Amino acid sequence: MLEQLKEEVYQANLDLPKHGLVKFTWGNASAVDRERGLFVIKPSGVDYETMKPSDMVVVDFEGNIVEGELNPSSDTQTHAVLYKHYSEIGGIVHTHSTWATIWAQAGLDVPAMGTTHADTFYGSIPCARFLTQEEIDQGYEAQTGHVIIETFEERGLDVLAVPGVLLQGHGPFTWGKDVKSAVMNSVVLDEVAKMNLFARELNHFAPLLPQRVLDKHYLRKHGKNAYYGQK
Amino acid sequence: MLEQLKEEVYQANLDLPKHGLVKFTWGNASAVDRERGLFVIKPSGVDYETMKPSDMVVVDFEGNIVEGELNPSSDTQTHAVLYKHYSEIGGIVHTHSTWATIWAQAGLDVPAMGTTHADTFYGSIPCARFLTQEEIDQGYEAQTGHVIIETFEERGLDVLAVPGVLLQGHGPFTWGKDVKSAVMNSVVLDEVAKMNLFARELNHFAPLLPQRVLDKHYLRKHGKNAYYGQK
Amino acid sequence: MLEQLKEEVYQANLDLPKHGLVKFTWGNASAVDRERGLFVIKPSGVDYETMKPSDMVVVDFEGNIVEGELNPSSDTQTHAVLYKHYSEIGGIVHTHSTWATIWAQAGLDVPAMGTTHADTFYGSIPCARFLTQEEIDQGYEAQTGHVIIETFEERGLDVLAVPGVLLQGHGPFTWGKDVKSAVMNSVVLDEVAKMNLFARELNHFAPLLPQRVLDKHYLRKHGKNAYYGQK
Amino acid sequence: MLEQLKEEVYQANLDLPKHGLVKFTWGNASAVDRERGLFVIKPSGVDYETMKPSDMVVVDFEGNIVEGELNPSSDTQTHAVLYKHYSEIGGIVHTHSTWATIWAQAGLDVPAMGTTHADTFYGSIPCARFLTQEEIDQGYEAQTGHVIIETFEERGLDVLAVPGVLLQGHGPFTWGKDVKSAVMNSVVLDEVAKMNLFARELNHFAPLLPQRVLDKHYLRKHGKNAYYGQK
Repeated sequence: MLEQLKEEVYQANLDLPKHGLVKFTWGNASAVDRERGLFVIKPSGVDYETMKPSDMVVVDFEGNIVEGELNPSSDTQTHAVLYKHYSEIGGIVHTHSTWATIWAQAGLDVPAMGTTHADTFYGSIPCARFLTQEEIDQGYEAQTGHVIIETFEERGLDVLAVPGVLLQGHGPFTWGKDVKSAVMNSVVLDEVAKMNLFARELNHFAPLLPQRVLDKHYLRKHGKNAYYGQK
Repeated sequence: MLEQLKEEVYQANLDLPKHGLVKFTWGNASAVDRERGLFVIKPSGVDYETMKPSDMVVVDFEGNIVEGELNPSSDTQTHAVLYKHYSEIGGIVHTHSTWATIWAQAGLDVPAMGTTHADTFYGSIPCARFLTQEEIDQGYEAQTGHVIIETFEERGLDVLAVPGVLLQGHGPFTWGKDVKSAVMNSVVLDEVAKMNLFARELNHFAPLLPQRVLDKHYLRKHGKNAYYGQK
Repeated sequence: MLEQLKEEVYQANLDLPKHGLVKFTWGNASAVDRERGLFVIKPSGVDYETMKPSDMVVVDFEGNIVEGELNPSSDTQTHAVLYKHYSEIGGIVHTHSTWATIWAQAGLDVPAMGTTHADTFYGSIPCARFLTQEEIDQGYEAQTGHVIIETFEERGLDVLAVPGVLLQGHGPFTWGKDVKSAVMNSVVLDEVAKMNLFARELNHFAPLLPQRVLDKHYLRKHGKNAYYGQK
Repeated sequence: MLEQLKEEVYQANLDLPKHGLVKFTWGNASAVDRERGLFVIKPSGVDYETMKPSDMVVVDFEGNIVEGELNPSSDTQTHAVLYKHYSEIGGIVHTHSTWATIWAQAGLDVPAMGTTHADTFYGSIPCARFLTQEEIDQGYEAQTGHVIIETFEERGLDVLAVPGVLLQGHGPFTWGKDVKSAVMNSVVLDEVAKMNLFARELNHFAPLLPQRVLDKHYLRKHGKNAYYGQK
């Protein structure tokens, strides 16, 4: 079942090391079939060189395995919680990509300092807090999803306008309308994390991108007046 | 029409990711035919892996499409303004290359700190100011071109002696006598941006390159007494 | 003899440059046969491009050559001392990988600042002291092994829970249940060394990973309640 | 003539971009035939992709072309002065490799902070001063060679024990008993320049490598009691 989606998820997972976002089996990508209420995710700890599209695991929104002979990613419950809560999300990616993880370890939001950021993320990329002991005991991976939701609700953020988050001390999750966008958003997040770190080192007083330039760049690529790309 | 120029522009665009200056479809290269008053530019948002020379778009100096079935780069008006104003420019490249963009985000000129810089850029590479709200409303991309011209005029710079600029919060534009030189100048700019950042971190009192060494290196490669390379 | 182990050690040595941990012939990997009390190690200073599995050298726990026509790695005595002292170690890797070596040169332990670290190392990775003149004179490489053991004993560390060490001013040694794990642990060590350096630069007050998150991540991958990967 | 040497010099020049030390045609490698008092050097500004062994230029110790149809490297006089003065040098390499050039731009010697350094360079790698206007006017490239000699004489350095130098604001020259060693020394110099920069950033009080460890590492690879590698 879901052969097309398995192929997409398989390709997306292979794209992660290709873009330098993932070493070994760190990281995972998934994509959802909204009609059936199921998603497809990478199996846990399987070598990317031997992994096949048919190894992808089909899971429901409670994280139950619906089809597949392998254990799904250990982060499956985080994906499940996000798919269940945000119906606009079509694909999710988790990595420990170097520069995004550095910001996560620093415990800081990635501020919008350039148009590379503004072309994809409409404002700061938030850093979600550490989980409490109680949350860890209640189910670490599902609670991770709930902390992401809490972060976006507290700040009143639109999940597609800011398609990513940092988990403090851990690393990034990104998402998008499909898994291919989620991968691209991971690439952008890692690149702007790198750029912003060094821009700050170079000039401790480097300004944020003015709101007018943030608006211009985000809106020439997104929304009804976008004019970037082909129709 | 302009088949030879389309091929050159196509190759120049492919060279950008090859040199690590561009991810996905970020960045664009163009080249001009001065006799016809037309230039050839990359289409907007087309995947580099499927793009063909015949996808290149022919545009006049007002940015009107003269030939081509695809939308030209969203930055086409910036190229048009520069070609119209500077008759000595044969090719233009725009990227969000990491280290040049870091300086753009820091809002700082790239000073001449070494001979790698002096071999190509005869002095500091200026960082142009943010656009005002009014300029953005009047046509963001064309006004970007005008702010570049303003920057070079205010500082009295020769556009071929300093063949590049940073746009604050955005990234670099470079140019040259042809599009191949423009690509090379992008590579040099990104490399000297990286070197200068870390030279400053290593020694906050690192000196500028003395004028006599700047002169020597620039002039052994450029101008009538140049003796670098083959005749 | 030990053809299978030679093949593994040969592959592990080739994996070091593939992962960007080693230039030229810097670095060495070995693996032990516990039943025979012998280990197999890379020959000293042999080009990786011409090296064959049969060039691997078989050595006993005193560092005597048991089989092989080439000199074993100049660091053989360090491996011998570690295999002799720690019966739980199956493979050892030594590199001068960039970021781990930077921490070694800084003379600092690599603290646990993220889950990338916690997934593999259960706490700080210690930096062992410089050798004294007397120790150097007594046999530099064997004494290096003894200083590693001293470091782990003084701190009461479990050698498999913290499968690596830095030698001050020198570089990392890592180990594992087999040589493949030892290579993976070298990759992880270098990556967390990089992440932690920049996380500290970005935020001088970046916190350590809370103990509860360190526990959670280490224990979901290691020990009897681990649930990462396939059974 | 000197076909074998031309092949070696050709290969050494190709190895420079392969090791990431050179972009485009920046950099040059040469090797000497001591019996004939001639050396072979890369032609100036020729594309590495089209360059052939037969394009290498044969030059005498005054920098006169003895054989070859192309202009030799613009830095030929620097090579000539060094070969003439130091009879123990067999090959020379000049690059603008990123991290060595950063130290050159910072105007600082590269201190011995680790064994990676000590395995190849027996002490600090000196940074030679800028040339004066008078020296530039007298012949920039030859005078560059004389400033290198001045630097080594003032400090009483053995040119094979410290097989490299930085030219302030410019970049490194390295050398060795042959051109292959000179290339390796360039790789080592760039790597230790990178490691030392970040070791200092991580710990402003990072110590130099103790003399006893510097001695041990240098001397286990060099001199009559060396025991690294194969006989």
